[in-house]
Amino acid sequence: MDLNNRRTIRKYTEQAISDELLQQLMEQACRASNTGNMQTYSVVVTRDNAQKEALSPAHFNQPMIRQAPVVLTFCADYNRFTKWCVCRQAEPGYENFQSFIGAAIDVVAFAQTFAVAAEAAGLGICYLGTTTYNADKIIETLRLPRLVVPLVTLTVGYPAEMPEQPDRLPLDAIMHQEYYHEATPEDIDSYYAYKESLPEMKQFIAENNKQTLAQVFTDVRYTKNNNEHFSKVLLDVLTKQGFLS
Amino acid sequence: MDLNNRRTIRKYTEQAISDELLQQLMEQACRASNTGNMQTYSVVVTRDNAQKEALSPAHFNQPMIRQAPVVLTFCADYNRFTKWCVCRQAEPGYENFQSFIGAAIDVVAFAQTFAVAAEAAGLGICYLGTTTYNADKIIETLRLPRLVVPLVTLTVGYPAEMPEQPDRLPLDAIMHQEYYHEATPEDIDSYYAYKESLPEMKQFIAENNKQTLAQVFTDVRYTKNNNEHFSKVLLDVLTKQGFLS
Repeated sequence: MDLNNRRTIRKYTEQAISDELLQQLMEQACRASNTGNMQTYSVVVTRDNAQKEALSPAHFNQPMIRQAPVVLTFCADYNRFTKWCVCRQAEPGYENFQSFIGAAIDVVAFAQTFAVAAEAAGLGICYLGTTTYNADKIIETLRLPRLVVPLVTLTVGYPAEMPEQPDRLPLDAIMHQEYYHEATPEDIDSYYAYKESLPEMKQFIAENNKQTLAQVFTDVRYTKNNNEHFSKVLLDVLTKQGFLS
Repeated sequence: MDLNNRRTIRKYTEQAISDELLQQLMEQACRASNTGNMQTYSVVVTRDNAQKEALSPAHFNQPMIRQAPVVLTFCADYNRFTKWCVCRQAEPGYENFQSFIGAAIDVVAFAQTFAVAAEAAGLGICYLGTTTYNADKIIETLRLPRLVVPLVTLTVGYPAEMPEQPDRLPLDAIMHQEYYHEATPEDIDSYYAYKESLPEMKQFIAENNKQTLAQVFTDVRYTKNNNEHFSKVLLDVLTKQGFLS
């Protein structure tokens, strides 16, 4: 395992992933810490081509969904735990936002441990940030019941590419000693100088007809309108699935 | 790294963690996937004893906070990214719930990768699930500004104990093939049989004067009243920090 040298893999060979390997990696992922050892998470494994087709629009037809041998949808899940309570004369109290957030934290730790284990076994993974945008469509396609919400999707396969590693901000931007230090305009210049100096970022600005890299994010990639629209969708999903009243 | 054999460590030796090691581990953690490479997360490092004292009540005075050489509070953070946008003539649009959830997913993947890296370096970690309960108090103590919300706290140190590994549910309970399968009462019996058979769980039921293990969770550990109270606190925090209107 070399965390420093990892990269996201978006192209995969045709080599299948065996059930045995997938299960071994899931066993490792289950060893991640979780709240009260309740394991309030689930993962839906998609191998079937028709199911990949059905999921594809929810992920804005990103090609990894159809191309990867395995697609994994990781879900916050209080359905199973609640059923256990009901079967054991206990009154469950998990239809609320705090329970959702706890389960969301636990499922991401589970998914990320799976990702680390998969990479250590020679596989490549890609996170799809589209899961929380179109959670309503994914719930329909995967038949997710009440108290189950999809949070994270990973495509998994043997790597057919070895892309460059993307840049990262300097640690100074991320780490705070004892108290949070709010960035001054001078700090911002220093934190973003390297990113803004990269030729591919300059190309990105030119291709999108923008003046600054930040404008590519605000006007094209992660716009206020889209964020507000998908916030409404997600809050509706939380209400329908029973986590918000 | 042996993910299968890891366990949570709650007792630490007096050996300090050097800044160099902490930075190396954070560099590795930053290599985790994140949405659009925006890195919308921060971590506040607490080493100062007075600050540990100040944080302690927010974590219900769990002894790890005072005892660990380092306490790490991982936060969803759109403050820095928003400042970058403002400094670069771009109009940020991140004061919404979808942006919060995206940042929350990314900070947990960051924190969990830190945990894996720390354990591979011989350290032990403990997750504190109290962070989202008392986020308001933590925000005050660590002076977290608008668009910054604490999600996950880790205590870190060199292990002074080697506890037994806790049980985990069988993979059948967690993994779903193609579609989610809702657990039947027979499934529930099978998934929870091993957990319920453990002597320490039987002791847990007796100590709490309950009839079933599930009742220990619903009536003592994770009660409806507490969950509903802390849901309100957390939704208020999201509103105050600018992620909910």
